[in-house]
Amino acid sequence: MSTTETTGVAHAPGAETSVVQIYDTTLRDGAQQEGMNLSVADKVSIAGLLDELGVDYIEGGWPGAVPKDTEFFARAAKELDLRHAKLAAFGATCKPGTQPHEDPQVQALVDSEAPVVTLVAKSDIRHVERALRTDGQENLRMIAATVRHLVGLGREVLVDCEHFFDGYGYDAAYAVACVEAAFDAGAATVVLCDTNGGMLPDVVTRVVTAVRARTSGRLGMHAHNDSGCAVANTLAAVAAGAGHVQGCVNGYGERTGNADLVTCAANLELKLERTTLPGLAEASRIAHAVAEITNIPPHPRQPYVGASAFAHKAGLHASAIRVDPDLYQHIDPVTVGNDMRMLVSEMAGRASIELKGRELGFDLSGQSDLLGRVTERVKAAEAAGYTFDAADASFELLLRAELDGGVAPRYFDVESWRTFVEHRADGVTIDSEATVKLRTGQGRMVSTGEGNGPVNALDHALRGALLSTYPEIEAFELVDYKVRILDSQQGTDATIRVLIATSDGVDTWSTVGIGTNIIEASWEALTDSVSWGLLHRGVEPR
Amino acid sequence: MSTTETTGVAHAPGAETSVVQIYDTTLRDGAQQEGMNLSVADKVSIAGLLDELGVDYIEGGWPGAVPKDTEFFARAAKELDLRHAKLAAFGATCKPGTQPHEDPQVQALVDSEAPVVTLVAKSDIRHVERALRTDGQENLRMIAATVRHLVGLGREVLVDCEHFFDGYGYDAAYAVACVEAAFDAGAATVVLCDTNGGMLPDVVTRVVTAVRARTSGRLGMHAHNDSGCAVANTLAAVAAGAGHVQGCVNGYGERTGNADLVTCAANLELKLERTTLPGLAEASRIAHAVAEITNIPPHPRQPYVGASAFAHKAGLHASAIRVDPDLYQHIDPVTVGNDMRMLVSEMAGRASIELKGRELGFDLSGQSDLLGRVTERVKAAEAAGYTFDAADASFELLLRAELDGGVAPRYFDVESWRTFVEHRADGVTIDSEATVKLRTGQGRMVSTGEGNGPVNALDHALRGALLSTYPEIEAFELVDYKVRILDSQQGTDATIRVLIATSDGVDTWSTVGIGTNIIEASWEALTDSVSWGLLHRGVEPR
Repeated sequence: MSTTETTGVAHAPGAETSVVQIYDTTLRDGAQQEGMNLSVADKVSIAGLLDELGVDYIEGGWPGAVPKDTEFFARAAKELDLRHAKLAAFGATCKPGTQPHEDPQVQALVDSEAPVVTLVAKSDIRHVERALRTDGQENLRMIAATVRHLVGLGREVLVDCEHFFDGYGYDAAYAVACVEAAFDAGAATVVLCDTNGGMLPDVVTRVVTAVRARTSGRLGMHAHNDSGCAVANTLAAVAAGAGHVQGCVNGYGERTGNADLVTCAANLELKLERTTLPGLAEASRIAHAVAEITNIPPHPRQPYVGASAFAHKAGLHASAIRVDPDLYQHIDPVTVGNDMRMLVSEMAGRASIELKGRELGFDLSGQSDLLGRVTERVKAAEAAGYTFDAADASFELLLRAELDGGVAPRYFDVESWRTFVEHRADGVTIDSEATVKLRTGQGRMVSTGEGNGPVNALDHALRGALLSTYPEIEAFELVDYKVRILDSQQGTDATIRVLIATSDGVDTWSTVGIGTNIIEASWEALTDSVSWGLLHRGVEPR
Repeated sequence: MSTTETTGVAHAPGAETSVVQIYDTTLRDGAQQEGMNLSVADKVSIAGLLDELGVDYIEGGWPGAVPKDTEFFARAAKELDLRHAKLAAFGATCKPGTQPHEDPQVQALVDSEAPVVTLVAKSDIRHVERALRTDGQENLRMIAATVRHLVGLGREVLVDCEHFFDGYGYDAAYAVACVEAAFDAGAATVVLCDTNGGMLPDVVTRVVTAVRARTSGRLGMHAHNDSGCAVANTLAAVAAGAGHVQGCVNGYGERTGNADLVTCAANLELKLERTTLPGLAEASRIAHAVAEITNIPPHPRQPYVGASAFAHKAGLHASAIRVDPDLYQHIDPVTVGNDMRMLVSEMAGRASIELKGRELGFDLSGQSDLLGRVTERVKAAEAAGYTFDAADASFELLLRAELDGGVAPRYFDVESWRTFVEHRADGVTIDSEATVKLRTGQGRMVSTGEGNGPVNALDHALRGALLSTYPEIEAFELVDYKVRILDSQQGTDATIRVLIATSDGVDTWSTVGIGTNIIEASWEALTDSVSWGLLHRGVEPR
């Protein structure tokens, strides 16, 4: 299938340009997500990243209504040097029975000094009557007057028609009248919002096509993902003539989230020959950097930028992938700054281990004996319960131990360890305690640690024992700890797998440990984690 | 917008039925997901849940190729009593130059005794030539011969045309020839697979419409989410005439995952007037129960069943939502067993607790104060990290403690416990040791237990301390033990949830414990498990 055939969608006849404007609302609508709480500094940092990505508009918040957002616009004016994006302030039209120049919230939009103002307007007559408690004519006046006021002050004005699709279904004429009122008053773009997120693509196609036939101004689409169709609804709107797309990085947002902006842009740019984000090739890095700031773990299965998005597990395909990667991936991951990854798994064969080695910087091609030995070790380890698809660092230690002439460096020899948890008669569970005894080249080390639980205590004791020999481990922090009971039907006699992620502030690496004893399994993953961290800092055993 | 208008898509003219078959591949394609590793027991448990959901087919795995899957079919034949679903075994057509009856992998499909066999077949000529290393004619023969062989043995045969859409784009005539070969040989359904997941809905519409025009057999759709359009692509295929949908619970699967089966079914059922899952109203509970088994934290923003899917944060709308919830949600969450979160304390929480109580044999209807107290306790406990979805016994102990005049019987009072794990200098991890001190009506009991790990040792010590007072516990066996790190980004400082299942050979019950210390959390679940077991045997405290 050639690229042209894949696209399938012809450009709207007479479309002047293939450019689709990209409008990010992470800082306003995205921040409505459960559990997200952004500081002003967070918002400034995210805005910088969005500008790198190349979005056309950054909606910064609702000045006047949210004090933090008022402060954001004040700081943004001083601190942000945007190369590509324009800042947009979000707010409502003037209130029923008032004039925009009398409305303090409209004035706050002006005071924000944002060059763009996005007004939210009701376009569903039921919401006008029941939530605004006014009538349809007055709502149209409020839209027109507020747009005209702001355009008169030199602002680029966008109008978000809230609940547009539900409103159109109930009273199409009124919904369209809102769009026309906004354009007639000078709005640059009118955005059709699926506020409840329940639309399906066929409905979007039908409605946007009908609105497109009634007006010549620029239409936008604002989709939520409640039906799992936010991206498809956005594409449907663009195919029907919309030239402006709203969404959030990582699909953040209330309920099921807003349309994932990177997924929308990548589909438009890579599959539909539209021009969207100049920084698309940096999208994976930027999406993950935003997730670091929001402190919401990135979703590994996220399209295009997810850690698993180009990860292949099935051994069946590994040999074919090596020969012909384009037959097994929908796009070249480089176009969105991602990588193809091979997962080492029970389905793995030599081909996937060779690919995995290459990813880690080892050329194993042609080394048939070595590949055979590593494959056998991986299979035996996986039969015992290890899993390497989420523990690259453990796999690398295993691989190095088999490499010609090379044995993984041995930083310390463990003599013994023990750990102790007590629930005393006074009803208090005491902090757990652990003692570790080991030897480095500097001598015998004995250290005792306390912690919230036995593994936390062991982690502290291990660091205590190693720190004087290897001060580098001060930077290592255990950032993720997962436990899986294998064949849990065996109860507490079952094999237990522990996965640990460790970070030194720059890199994060994962190790695995196995045992019928959870403490033993954790100990294995902990010690591997320290060894890999030292190895990758180029530390020699001391 | 009326319901009929919302649907937008007319049924294909001449469609005989509005039923769309739902085919679940969680146990086969879903298990390809990075980090997922299902035991045979896990698979059996998930299959039972899928049957409750009402899927038409459960694809159990690839017998003959994956030893665990061979074992699954053997155990499923004995243990699973499916009320609705049919089990399907997945496998490849016979190899080039061979006959199906000579092919041991085809024989393994027969030996699995699954009534349905799903054959994966190449339909992209490039894959035939480069991966299978044969020619187009031979591939058609392999398809036809394998289908005919299995149909002759009384199996219902489905054919998954791998890479169908990419193949169609490159050589449409060959791709269609594969479909025709399968139908001509007796396949019940031919499934068009977007194996690389890169399709967009418009292309799917065009291709399925074209294939539909060429054949009258039942077509299916198998979508992956690499473009973020798996659900929309599935709906597009159904609108174009497909009557069979494949996907996975929770959208599990390799890379970005397969189509989320519940989202597809809910859209079809609730918005497109198709008949899909009889258990749709239980979908949220079942999706979360499956996630407990896979031990992959559920995605809160998942459409329909996600914890946030009907959670409203915007204070702006709060009062309007109370008055007129239908204006602010795309469907009634009850239809998928979910709740609008903002109203949970008023209505939905109580309703589900009343239902849950009824399930456990307590009629709580009309007991408004009691329901209020239990709802508050459940909410507080869930905020702390407890989950009662998978711990009925713990919920019942909580409920009984609130019942009028009733306090959960107190079988013993714990004085203290401690546990100890040591890895000695000789390199052997010794059996862990635990000591429990408690009082029953018979006096003070002190018991020491050993075990494979600290929890196993504690379990043994607890039984030892109770056995002389309550010989009934001899029959209790701990059969499942699961650990989930909540907020795992906190490393070993995080809150830990332990779920324990206990059996007395007749009943199995589940209890939950919480703590920052895994031992403490396990202790809570262990003691609750003993108390519930004694309670349900009608044992009075002694």
